[in-house]
Amino acid sequence: MYPAAIQKLKHCLKNKVSTTQSDCYRASFDALKISFLPQAVIHAKVPEDIAIVLNLANQFKIPVTTRGAGSSLTGSATPIHGGWVLDMSALKKITILEKQKLAIVQPGVITEALKKAAEKRGLFYPPDPASAHFCTIGGNIACNAGGLNCVKYGVTRDYIIALKGYLPTGEPVSWGLPLRKFSAGYNMRDLWIGSEGTLGVITEATLKLIPLPQSRMTYLAVFQNDHQALVAARKFNHFNIIPCALEFLDETSTRCVAPKYLPKKFAGSSFILIDLDGEKDAVKKDFSHIKTWLKKETPDYLIAQNSTQRNRLWKMRRECSPSMFFYGDSRLNEDIVVPLDKIPSLINFVKKLSKDYDLTIPIFGHLGDGNLHANIMFNRKTPSQVKAAQSVLHHLMHKVIELGGAISGEHGIGLAKSTFFPLQHSAHEINAMLKIKQALDPNNILNPGKIFKPFSPWQYPSVPDKMPWDKI
Amino acid sequence: MYPAAIQKLKHCLKNKVSTTQSDCYRASFDALKISFLPQAVIHAKVPEDIAIVLNLANQFKIPVTTRGAGSSLTGSATPIHGGWVLDMSALKKITILEKQKLAIVQPGVITEALKKAAEKRGLFYPPDPASAHFCTIGGNIACNAGGLNCVKYGVTRDYIIALKGYLPTGEPVSWGLPLRKFSAGYNMRDLWIGSEGTLGVITEATLKLIPLPQSRMTYLAVFQNDHQALVAARKFNHFNIIPCALEFLDETSTRCVAPKYLPKKFAGSSFILIDLDGEKDAVKKDFSHIKTWLKKETPDYLIAQNSTQRNRLWKMRRECSPSMFFYGDSRLNEDIVVPLDKIPSLINFVKKLSKDYDLTIPIFGHLGDGNLHANIMFNRKTPSQVKAAQSVLHHLMHKVIELGGAISGEHGIGLAKSTFFPLQHSAHEINAMLKIKQALDPNNILNPGKIFKPFSPWQYPSVPDKMPWDKI
Repeated sequence: MYPAAIQKLKHCLKNKVSTTQSDCYRASFDALKISFLPQAVIHAKVPEDIAIVLNLANQFKIPVTTRGAGSSLTGSATPIHGGWVLDMSALKKITILEKQKLAIVQPGVITEALKKAAEKRGLFYPPDPASAHFCTIGGNIACNAGGLNCVKYGVTRDYIIALKGYLPTGEPVSWGLPLRKFSAGYNMRDLWIGSEGTLGVITEATLKLIPLPQSRMTYLAVFQNDHQALVAARKFNHFNIIPCALEFLDETSTRCVAPKYLPKKFAGSSFILIDLDGEKDAVKKDFSHIKTWLKKETPDYLIAQNSTQRNRLWKMRRECSPSMFFYGDSRLNEDIVVPLDKIPSLINFVKKLSKDYDLTIPIFGHLGDGNLHANIMFNRKTPSQVKAAQSVLHHLMHKVIELGGAISGEHGIGLAKSTFFPLQHSAHEINAMLKIKQALDPNNILNPGKIFKPFSPWQYPSVPDKMPWDKI
Repeated sequence: MYPAAIQKLKHCLKNKVSTTQSDCYRASFDALKISFLPQAVIHAKVPEDIAIVLNLANQFKIPVTTRGAGSSLTGSATPIHGGWVLDMSALKKITILEKQKLAIVQPGVITEALKKAAEKRGLFYPPDPASAHFCTIGGNIACNAGGLNCVKYGVTRDYIIALKGYLPTGEPVSWGLPLRKFSAGYNMRDLWIGSEGTLGVITEATLKLIPLPQSRMTYLAVFQNDHQALVAARKFNHFNIIPCALEFLDETSTRCVAPKYLPKKFAGSSFILIDLDGEKDAVKKDFSHIKTWLKKETPDYLIAQNSTQRNRLWKMRRECSPSMFFYGDSRLNEDIVVPLDKIPSLINFVKKLSKDYDLTIPIFGHLGDGNLHANIMFNRKTPSQVKAAQSVLHHLMHKVIELGGAISGEHGIGLAKSTFFPLQHSAHEINAMLKIKQALDPNNILNPGKIFKPFSPWQYPSVPDKMPWDKI
């Protein structure tokens, strides 16, 4: 396939192009675990490599799928139409401009590495996907990642000041400048953010940093059951405290992740995990409110006394997603969002689905911003479970829309949610988006087959391989 | 012109269409004051009116220019190609959702009216253009307006959660939902924001409100000259205090606006006007820093003791823009932005231009975010002044780009800055924007001739009329 194109590619990008079966296989799937083999993998080393790749791809009409860590849960990085995979993971330069409180980063930077580099200078990059220790900034921008700290600090988009990169047709562009105000022309920066690699390839991002909060407190509230936790959460809101994280782990989730980190009796309880940060005095002031709340609402709670204890609790939370394979070899991780007052309705609905269809559906996530992760677990080889998972997904997505919610809060649409995309947007809305795709990418080179084209993952086998971060 | 179209329009929108000369004349110019007569003015009363207008306009290929208050300083609301003006000023419903901290507003709402409605519920809509008491939310969104409070609170874009409206081709669309996270499809919301009415017509915006700050303090620091003020400003930054406003008024500006509000001796001084807000304790804590700074840096300062005194000081600041006509019958109000450390270079450059070209160029504005308003004042009937103003503008814009800045921070490009647009963006970047315009508005109906097409205001006479808010 495309031998002339690959020959040219290899000629132009010496030692950066691989066509070995093992490299192509590794690039053939992401965390969705459905494999489509590409014909070549390009390991970009400098931004200019991208122009060469895109120019050739347009000339030969070859699909190009950009890839960072491959941690996309929706298949955004899966090369569904084959072609070339553009691996950006070697582009991982970080420059911190301390005085200006900015970071200039390449897309292959691991989110956690940026957070640490900022912290060393007393600065803070708030976006904090649970996958921060393996996902990349490029991927975070592509799907407008959120994470644990959004309730107070917002999402990736809120920290992006400027982007550099290439249009699908290969021309270099810059969107935005490191300025506090900018009102000169169309905002292409925000159009790129969240477009899942379909409208351009990012080679550099200028990110906003903020002063590192002086103080931090972590609390774990343990409830007998989910109902009790949700009632308590509603009361928490009355304090008008904005925590930097407010996470929920349901009974099913804790049964799986708690034993490794906490006394055995806590497994099967329902958790609310709270982080407060800010000025020392303010955090102290809030502490007294929260202690009252804890004492009143639950007999069992933990207050992390040091960073080791805190990290332990948050490690448990971060392990939720990869650990859920305990309940099945396959899962649908749905990062749905609903208005805050609709959270109990949603959770109850999920529990009912779980019972009706006899599937385990742990639900955990961001209670503070209404973005919950419903993990529909099933075994691929059990046809009845596959069928049940399909039905559960269908009902769940319709319910989310009925509650005024979004089918994705931070993962994006990719392949996994494309079937439900028309629930979220009208035909006119989707048509307008498609017109933009067509205008900027007339040859449909960049990440074709994503977002807009219904895809049924059920027809395809799941790869047996584990991602490096999968726990079980 | 277009008699059949206008007849249909009048038939479909009874009592909402005017073709009288006086109505058409009033809609023929905005605050740029260059008149292009439209053939009809449509006074939209309900959102559905927009669909009718746009469908007919596409059918008959008639340009449509959306208009709020007409306060655009760049001519964004000028119907340069005639056609129809879509007047949105009657769409001014405000709904405050107190519990959810949201406002749902129509585009004709005056910004100040929204701020007051929020305040009544203990809530705060931070964006605060100096023109807040006459500009509209629709216009604010169209040019991503900023204003006085941006240094702490950001710009209009930061408060827009969702938009409803119509595509240029007349189809109704909704971009976004009132949720904390959303990652489902292209971000058309932010593409609309700042697109100056060229990509759609907004009929409803869902805006984020925040709790009203408990406490507020206003300070006026008076300096002997601009140099002294800028040196002091640099020292202010060392405190690491983030004021909600940090405004600069140069010697020339204060000569004009100070006498009405302050002791005569202050006219011709240089001012820094500071607002701090937040929790009572925090504002108090900052107060001690600022007092030290004031005492050290200037012998003359005022601390507003109550809201009357505070309002008086801010009224003075808000009158800067309309009052500058004291210095000439015409002006170019350039809302340029530069990186914070480049502000002194910019101001010195403006002063040099003023001297070299013998023109008065008061400069005032947002010291805290680098967005300054250089007002190039001249008399239209003096050809040498017109020529000088042209040269000054040319040099200023090139300097801004040289300093890594933006030619517009909050006014947009419109007609007035279109000549300089290619300084800001490369041909590839502009081409990508034009492709989007072409894709969404194939008949080039909405606000044609703006942003992208170089326009020379110098060829056209200025209308003698004053805008309702002009002072002199």
